[in-house]
Amino acid sequence: MPDAPFRRLALIGIGLIGSSLARAAKEKGGIADEVVATARSAATRDTVRRLGIVDRVEDTAAAAVAGADCVMLCAPVGAFADIAAAIAPHLARDAVLTDVGSTKGSVIRDVGPYVPDHAHFVPGHPIAGTEHSGPEAGFATLFEGRYAILTPPPGTDEAAVAKVATLWRNAGSMVEIMEPQHHDKVFAIVSHLPHLIAFTICGTADDLEEESRQAVLRFAASGFRDFTRIAASDPEMWRDVFLNNREALLEMAQRFTEDMTAMARAVRWGDASYIEDKIARGRRIRRRLIELRQA
Amino acid sequence: MPDAPFRRLALIGIGLIGSSLARAAKEKGGIADEVVATARSAATRDTVRRLGIVDRVEDTAAAAVAGADCVMLCAPVGAFADIAAAIAPHLARDAVLTDVGSTKGSVIRDVGPYVPDHAHFVPGHPIAGTEHSGPEAGFATLFEGRYAILTPPPGTDEAAVAKVATLWRNAGSMVEIMEPQHHDKVFAIVSHLPHLIAFTICGTADDLEEESRQAVLRFAASGFRDFTRIAASDPEMWRDVFLNNREALLEMAQRFTEDMTAMARAVRWGDASYIEDKIARGRRIRRRLIELRQA
Repeated sequence: MPDAPFRRLALIGIGLIGSSLARAAKEKGGIADEVVATARSAATRDTVRRLGIVDRVEDTAAAAVAGADCVMLCAPVGAFADIAAAIAPHLARDAVLTDVGSTKGSVIRDVGPYVPDHAHFVPGHPIAGTEHSGPEAGFATLFEGRYAILTPPPGTDEAAVAKVATLWRNAGSMVEIMEPQHHDKVFAIVSHLPHLIAFTICGTADDLEEESRQAVLRFAASGFRDFTRIAASDPEMWRDVFLNNREALLEMAQRFTEDMTAMARAVRWGDASYIEDKIARGRRIRRRLIELRQA
Repeated sequence: MPDAPFRRLALIGIGLIGSSLARAAKEKGGIADEVVATARSAATRDTVRRLGIVDRVEDTAAAAVAGADCVMLCAPVGAFADIAAAIAPHLARDAVLTDVGSTKGSVIRDVGPYVPDHAHFVPGHPIAGTEHSGPEAGFATLFEGRYAILTPPPGTDEAAVAKVATLWRNAGSMVEIMEPQHHDKVFAIVSHLPHLIAFTICGTADDLEEESRQAVLRFAASGFRDFTRIAASDPEMWRDVFLNNREALLEMAQRFTEDMTAMARAVRWGDASYIEDKIARGRRIRRRLIELRQA
C-alpha cells in the first residue's frame, strides 16, 4: 500500500462519496492511516457502524474533527456553512479542510470565512458518482480513472494542496486544478443543466393525462429512459447544487432555453437546414468525446 | 423456422432498421421467403449487395415492389410522399404496404392518398434502434423484446394487419395497436423531445468559448455524455421526424419550456420545496420504469 498523505481523515457526512473513499482507504490504502466519520442522522451513523468501513463513528462533527489532520466535508453543499461554523473551533493546527461538493464558488463563500488561520482550506470536487446514494451504495473503485478537481483560492498552502492531490491520486483519480468560477460554469453545462433538464422533463411527462403517462412508461426506451437515469440521483444533494450554483446554472439554462426556442421555431417554420446544422453539431461533439475516450 | 406471413418483402430504403429486418429474415425466418431491397444511393445499394443480406437489390423502387406481397418503407419519413407516388402504379394486387417511420400521422397523410384500392396500407413503427445508422449497423436481434406499434386507419383489412403483426412477432417484437394521433403524442414526449433537447444542448455547449468547450468534452461524464449518446443518431431521419411530427412535438416542447422556466424561476428565488417536488417526481418515474423492467 502507498504511504498515506494523512494520519487521520474525518469525513463529515458519509453517503456515496464518503463511504467510497472510506472503502478505498481500507482496500487500496494511500488515503489516511485512520478514518473517522460522522453523519447528521443517527440511522446513517448506525449503518456506517454496521458496515464497518471506518475506524470510528462519532455522533458530532466537532468530535469527529478533533485530532484529524484532514477534514473532508461530504454532506450536501447547502449544509456546509453550518458545518463549518460547528467544526471551526475544533480544527487541529495545520489541519487540511477539504470537501467534495459539486459547486465551488458557494463552498468558498460559505466555508472560507470560518477557516482559522492555523488551518488550510483546499476545496475539491471528485467527478464521480452513480445514480445510487447513501453509505451502502459506495465502493472502493468509484474514483478510478475519474477526475478530481481542486480549486484552491490564491495563497493556499502548496503542501496542503499537494497532500489532497496525493489522496485523490491514490484513490485512482486524475487531479486537475481549476479556478472556482471556471469550474462552476463548466459543471453548470456538463452536469447541473442536464440534471435540471432531466428532472424537468420527468415532471412534464408526469403532468400528462393518465393514458399518455402509462404509454410514456411503456415506451420509455426510445430516449426518455436515458433522461430518467440521471434523474434518479440524490434529491437533497441536487437541490443544494442547483441553489448553490445559481448564477452559472441560470445563465446556462437561459442560453439553452433560447436555443430550444430557436429550434422549436425552426420546426414550426420547416427550416430543415437549421435543424440539420444542430444535429451535425451534436454528432461532431459525440465524435470528439469518442476520440477523447470520454463517451 | 416459423412460416413466413409473406412470400416476397420489398424494403424501400435499407439502413439500420431495414438491414436488421433483412438479417432477421435470413437468420430467424418467419418474415418473408424472399427479401428484395432498394436504396436511393448507388453506394448504399453496392454496400447491401456486398453484405449479401438480401436476395436481390434493385436500382429503383418501382422495380423492387414489382411482384412483392409486402412493401415496407424504411427511408426517412420526409421521402415517403415521393416514394409512394413512385411505387403506387407498381403495387401488386392485395399487396400490403407498411412502413417503419417514427411519425404516423404524417405517414398516413403523405402515403394514404396514393394507396390503390387493390392494396392494403398498415402503418407501423418498430420501437428499436441504436445510435448507429446505415446497412452495416444492422443486426438480426435488434427487434427482440422491443415493441412494434401498428396504427391502421379505420377499415383497414384485418388479415393485412394480422400478417404485419406476425412479421414483427417473428422478428421478436411485442405488437401493439394504437391510434396514430396517440402514437404521435406519446413519441413526441418519450423520443422526439428528448432528441430535440439532446441536439440543442450540444449546440449550446458548442457555442461556449474555446476554453470552456474543451472542459465540456473533458468532463462530459458528469451527465452531458448521456445526452450526446442520443444526439449521435441519424441526422436525416431525425430532421424528418421533427418536421413531420410538428404539432405534437411543438406542444410538448412548449410544455417542457414552460416547465424549464418555472424550474429556473425556483432556482432564482431559492424555492427549495418546488425543486424537491420535481426531483421526487423524477425519482418516482424512474422507480416505476424499474418496476416495469423498462429501465
